[in-house]
Amino acid sequence: MASNGFGQTFRFTTWGESHGPAIGCVVDGCPPGIALAEEDLQIWLDKRRPGQSRFTTQRREPDSVRILSGVFEGQTTGTPIGLVIENVDQRSRDYSKIADRFRPGHADYTYWKKYGIRDYRGGGRSSARETAMRVAAGGIARKVLGDGVSIRGALVRIGEKRVDRTRWDWDAVGANPFFCPDAAAAEEWADYLDAVRKAGSSVGAVIEIVAEGVPAGLGEPVYGKLDGDLAAAMMSINAVKGVEIGDGFASAAKRGEDAHDEMAPDDDGGVAFLSNNAGGVLGGISSGQPVVARFAVKPTSSILLPRRGVTEAGEAVEIVTTGRHDPCVGIRAVPVGEAMMALVLADHLLRHRAQNG
Amino acid sequence: MASNGFGQTFRFTTWGESHGPAIGCVVDGCPPGIALAEEDLQIWLDKRRPGQSRFTTQRREPDSVRILSGVFEGQTTGTPIGLVIENVDQRSRDYSKIADRFRPGHADYTYWKKYGIRDYRGGGRSSARETAMRVAAGGIARKVLGDGVSIRGALVRIGEKRVDRTRWDWDAVGANPFFCPDAAAAEEWADYLDAVRKAGSSVGAVIEIVAEGVPAGLGEPVYGKLDGDLAAAMMSINAVKGVEIGDGFASAAKRGEDAHDEMAPDDDGGVAFLSNNAGGVLGGISSGQPVVARFAVKPTSSILLPRRGVTEAGEAVEIVTTGRHDPCVGIRAVPVGEAMMALVLADHLLRHRAQNG
Amino acid sequence: MASNGFGQTFRFTTWGESHGPAIGCVVDGCPPGIALAEEDLQIWLDKRRPGQSRFTTQRREPDSVRILSGVFEGQTTGTPIGLVIENVDQRSRDYSKIADRFRPGHADYTYWKKYGIRDYRGGGRSSARETAMRVAAGGIARKVLGDGVSIRGALVRIGEKRVDRTRWDWDAVGANPFFCPDAAAAEEWADYLDAVRKAGSSVGAVIEIVAEGVPAGLGEPVYGKLDGDLAAAMMSINAVKGVEIGDGFASAAKRGEDAHDEMAPDDDGGVAFLSNNAGGVLGGISSGQPVVARFAVKPTSSILLPRRGVTEAGEAVEIVTTGRHDPCVGIRAVPVGEAMMALVLADHLLRHRAQNG
Amino acid sequence: MASNGFGQTFRFTTWGESHGPAIGCVVDGCPPGIALAEEDLQIWLDKRRPGQSRFTTQRREPDSVRILSGVFEGQTTGTPIGLVIENVDQRSRDYSKIADRFRPGHADYTYWKKYGIRDYRGGGRSSARETAMRVAAGGIARKVLGDGVSIRGALVRIGEKRVDRTRWDWDAVGANPFFCPDAAAAEEWADYLDAVRKAGSSVGAVIEIVAEGVPAGLGEPVYGKLDGDLAAAMMSINAVKGVEIGDGFASAAKRGEDAHDEMAPDDDGGVAFLSNNAGGVLGGISSGQPVVARFAVKPTSSILLPRRGVTEAGEAVEIVTTGRHDPCVGIRAVPVGEAMMALVLADHLLRHRAQNG
Repeated sequence: MASNGFGQTFRFTTWGESHGPAIGCVVDGCPPGIALAEEDLQIWLDKRRPGQSRFTTQRREPDSVRILSGVFEGQTTGTPIGLVIENVDQRSRDYSKIADRFRPGHADYTYWKKYGIRDYRGGGRSSARETAMRVAAGGIARKVLGDGVSIRGALVRIGEKRVDRTRWDWDAVGANPFFCPDAAAAEEWADYLDAVRKAGSSVGAVIEIVAEGVPAGLGEPVYGKLDGDLAAAMMSINAVKGVEIGDGFASAAKRGEDAHDEMAPDDDGGVAFLSNNAGGVLGGISSGQPVVARFAVKPTSSILLPRRGVTEAGEAVEIVTTGRHDPCVGIRAVPVGEAMMALVLADHLLRHRAQNG
Repeated sequence: MASNGFGQTFRFTTWGESHGPAIGCVVDGCPPGIALAEEDLQIWLDKRRPGQSRFTTQRREPDSVRILSGVFEGQTTGTPIGLVIENVDQRSRDYSKIADRFRPGHADYTYWKKYGIRDYRGGGRSSARETAMRVAAGGIARKVLGDGVSIRGALVRIGEKRVDRTRWDWDAVGANPFFCPDAAAAEEWADYLDAVRKAGSSVGAVIEIVAEGVPAGLGEPVYGKLDGDLAAAMMSINAVKGVEIGDGFASAAKRGEDAHDEMAPDDDGGVAFLSNNAGGVLGGISSGQPVVARFAVKPTSSILLPRRGVTEAGEAVEIVTTGRHDPCVGIRAVPVGEAMMALVLADHLLRHRAQNG
Repeated sequence: MASNGFGQTFRFTTWGESHGPAIGCVVDGCPPGIALAEEDLQIWLDKRRPGQSRFTTQRREPDSVRILSGVFEGQTTGTPIGLVIENVDQRSRDYSKIADRFRPGHADYTYWKKYGIRDYRGGGRSSARETAMRVAAGGIARKVLGDGVSIRGALVRIGEKRVDRTRWDWDAVGANPFFCPDAAAAEEWADYLDAVRKAGSSVGAVIEIVAEGVPAGLGEPVYGKLDGDLAAAMMSINAVKGVEIGDGFASAAKRGEDAHDEMAPDDDGGVAFLSNNAGGVLGGISSGQPVVARFAVKPTSSILLPRRGVTEAGEAVEIVTTGRHDPCVGIRAVPVGEAMMALVLADHLLRHRAQNG
Repeated sequence: MASNGFGQTFRFTTWGESHGPAIGCVVDGCPPGIALAEEDLQIWLDKRRPGQSRFTTQRREPDSVRILSGVFEGQTTGTPIGLVIENVDQRSRDYSKIADRFRPGHADYTYWKKYGIRDYRGGGRSSARETAMRVAAGGIARKVLGDGVSIRGALVRIGEKRVDRTRWDWDAVGANPFFCPDAAAAEEWADYLDAVRKAGSSVGAVIEIVAEGVPAGLGEPVYGKLDGDLAAAMMSINAVKGVEIGDGFASAAKRGEDAHDEMAPDDDGGVAFLSNNAGGVLGGISSGQPVVARFAVKPTSSILLPRRGVTEAGEAVEIVTTGRHDPCVGIRAVPVGEAMMALVLADHLLRHRAQNG
């Protein structure tokens, strides 16, 4: 049934396949009177764009977004915003090799079982190409949140390698092809990922998204919790297998006295938390602390090493991917994760306003 | 806004606070003609019921569920099923100690910031008492899924202790107070948790839920993915800080050739997977393999050790919990996690049928 | 699927059958901090209560509503409000006469065709008894709207008889058993309806609901228009066959120069409309004028005159209703229509606030 | 908030303004494996296309629809279908005359009050141009319903003129510029509407939509009733002020024995209704009889006669429309009403299947 939209009050609905003529989305429920131009979205799309280093797919897509409705004389009007990006570099010439077979790790088999038909060109709807529209919609969400909210993401793990958190530097993130906040690690990662790539293999990654400036009070118990919606949002990104908030899985190993953030009066008569193990969410509602979400991305499914698969006819087949691919799809998931954080927060900002004025 | 319901076609909506007269829920969209009696729900509620061992809260609640609508002559009619459980052991006598203060780890502060008012008795709406209704609704969901689908949960980690997966025995789960699938570990855990309890502390846990017999094809890309909805479902459970599917976070450290499940023809002309790293979900759609979800529960927030908190008036205060509590809330989360798995699967079974017949 | 709830941000979900132990509803999304007691709802339920004159059903139901959650120390908390009314006078002793047959005008046949099973006692879920919960929920909606919004309903037609609009007097509405705003007509209607009743027949009615004090700006083009949602709300009331806004069907016969409300500056620098043919809605958005909705109710289906029906076994059968019934169900639809107006407006007030602050 | 989509399982979301570069929609939840080409949609768009007679607006729009996703090798894939129509004849050269003023009968004032900003060119989002996407989406809905369901619409009233139902001929509908099922009336209407047009005025209309072949069982009590959703669907069409099902408002004047459709066994062991006063819906569920909906359209708001309006600055102003317009917007509402009927039925077909298999 209808499942290609996300959000309640600020809702976006995407359409399009990897190798169709275009992809697009509708952003519905955007407040009126917000200055918005295509450049405001393009800056985020450019961060996600493929082919910017040897570590991401070589598909050449300018990913130029057009705003076709909902903006008048430079401002949002409150009516739905239609966005379209043309697919330029589809290269759908030859898919005969995969048209009739199910590749390990891909959604080929499950789409076929579900729908009885699938657009096999580049993965069709299951392609990460869809995430371009999340990034574009996320640009609008950032405008809704305003300058007071900052959303930044970083790769904190790639395969066996992790960042050293004592060297965390947000400025480093934009200065290497990995969105890595640890400049020293990034250099090491380049060699590591080159070796992975040359071996025809791939690796997974962990991405951390931090939203600062989020007001306390966002999130709706019990089935519209902020962390519940973030979990759904992040898990819906291609290849994601796990999501955690704050301490996440590490909290399972903790004792109560180490796990919970103590409080003290702050200087303004308010409350200061003495730590942020909770990742900014208590009882499903933002606490005013930074909202911290982390998600795990599995290794790219398309690799050059031969893998055992099956054809539609039920025959065993060896599958080797020969086309372009990302040795670590997790890298380009960073701007996507940022976008999903922005989209969830914008939706909850409006939802909170609905009920609580 | 309205956020106390979950599910699209098979939807349940809960209401009630820890210390109000009753809690309840409405299950809407249940198919007609299913044999259903209160006993079918009570068996699951009995698994979750508090006070069954010294390791869970001593609150005495029979948790007797009543079906008030939607069932006629022993069968569901397709109309909404109203369920109610009376709160018997509220003990709301003395909450003066916490009425005006924010306890660390609890939702006191965030509810107050969001709504400007909160029912402080036993945590009000933020209490895990709400999960009783999930378990009851989950009993109906199991009926919708039918006998072909088996859903079982187990505690795989408690604080620093993990199960030995080579000793996994589903029969052991019901034979110890921890839902532990490793009988040897369970004995060790009893001592461990006694020590935690006597120290006035608490620990976290990891729960694993496995659904077998799930047909291939459930889940709706891209924002109604089966794993996306499972993530939202599990994260919405009280105290949960992380969710993963299949290999989950471990997949981030893997290489492509180790991460993806190869396939081979099976004996019936179908497809057999040679492993289940994916946890039964590919591209957001079930593959026919067991669906495996895992979630992390933080340590119980209420502990006997003094912690720093703040009053509504903005004054520093030391907070010590003196009432009954669970040293590990994760234990009773096992039947809740099972219920959420059942609820998500039942919803998706009907959603799939809507679109695909 | 799940269709027993109404509203987006302010949403209520009802459950219960005519002859079950109770009926109830959950009101989700109510703003916090609103003073609310059971009496606030009871006053509206008392208006709808059966058996208050010889012109409505003699079923004796006190319709005492209980608030089971969502209110703490006399104020709403923002969490879901659970409401329950016990069924007292079910008299389900003898339904053998209708258990196996489809009565003309009733939903017996269609429920059976849809679900393959039906609770035949008093119409089960299709009974107008469900509307009691709308009225209770509507009482909460009125609180959300506040004293500045006035919602009143009246019967403007009963069978062949209409009110004389030149004699319209809102005070008359409460002074006769018909909610008739024309005192002279009400006297005439008593004789008329007595004759209908004695003949064992029934008649239809038209109800008009007027909301004053509604701010301009409520309603969301294009599929959440205020009039679109009002149409859905009113049409969902039992036995309703038509809904119109403002001039409604009469506007089809008009010319442009007579149909549209001209405007002039008002004394406060705003806009005054010179008429209200639009019924307070333009382009799906409230204009600040009174919102006027009208709906037609068909004659009561249960009559004492013999009618041709069919049994489940497919045999022709003559059907005569012998039990208590309303000679004009439209009468008690007045408070229900008021409630639905309140519910739609409260929802849109919050929806508007979500997007537009 | 997000209100530009309609439907639950089969859902479409539209975007676009009268004078933007394009309009579009996303159809989400369409079953897979349905043969679909642009021509399947174009035939319905051509019926609605403006400028086909002197009785509709002279705006020249080819309304060529493109399918940009969701169809692969001629079949739907189950993924969202993106549709786009370019606006060709926007003529947005000179809107200075209406940019700062509120026209009677239009949504100028209410959009401005709601959003504080409006695209005044051709009415922006409030233009009936949006209905082109409904017609396109409706073409897909017809495919979902299949050949067994026939949906036809006709104009049964235009201003003071009505059809003679004894002369009803569906074949006549396509043979005159009014979708009039009474060939004799159509000739008379031409003269009548010419006079209206030459007088610079406009008239309203009533449209009747009949769906035959609808299976019994569609519709979901109590807030997803088939007639409730039809009411919302029809009322959401521009300029509609009333909706009725079957006898509609006429039923208010009837007696019980005349209002309800008696039943008799049919030849196949089923049930035959002896009349169709109910318009094919009982208790919100289709009965298997033709579903009959009727809606009233007010006269075109833009007329050549001077009308009193107000400027944004709050000054009185005389408003005369000089551009192209339809003397009766109701005419082109016929294919739109058909589309909305198809969209509601397709959604309910899938919803029914979800719950009832």
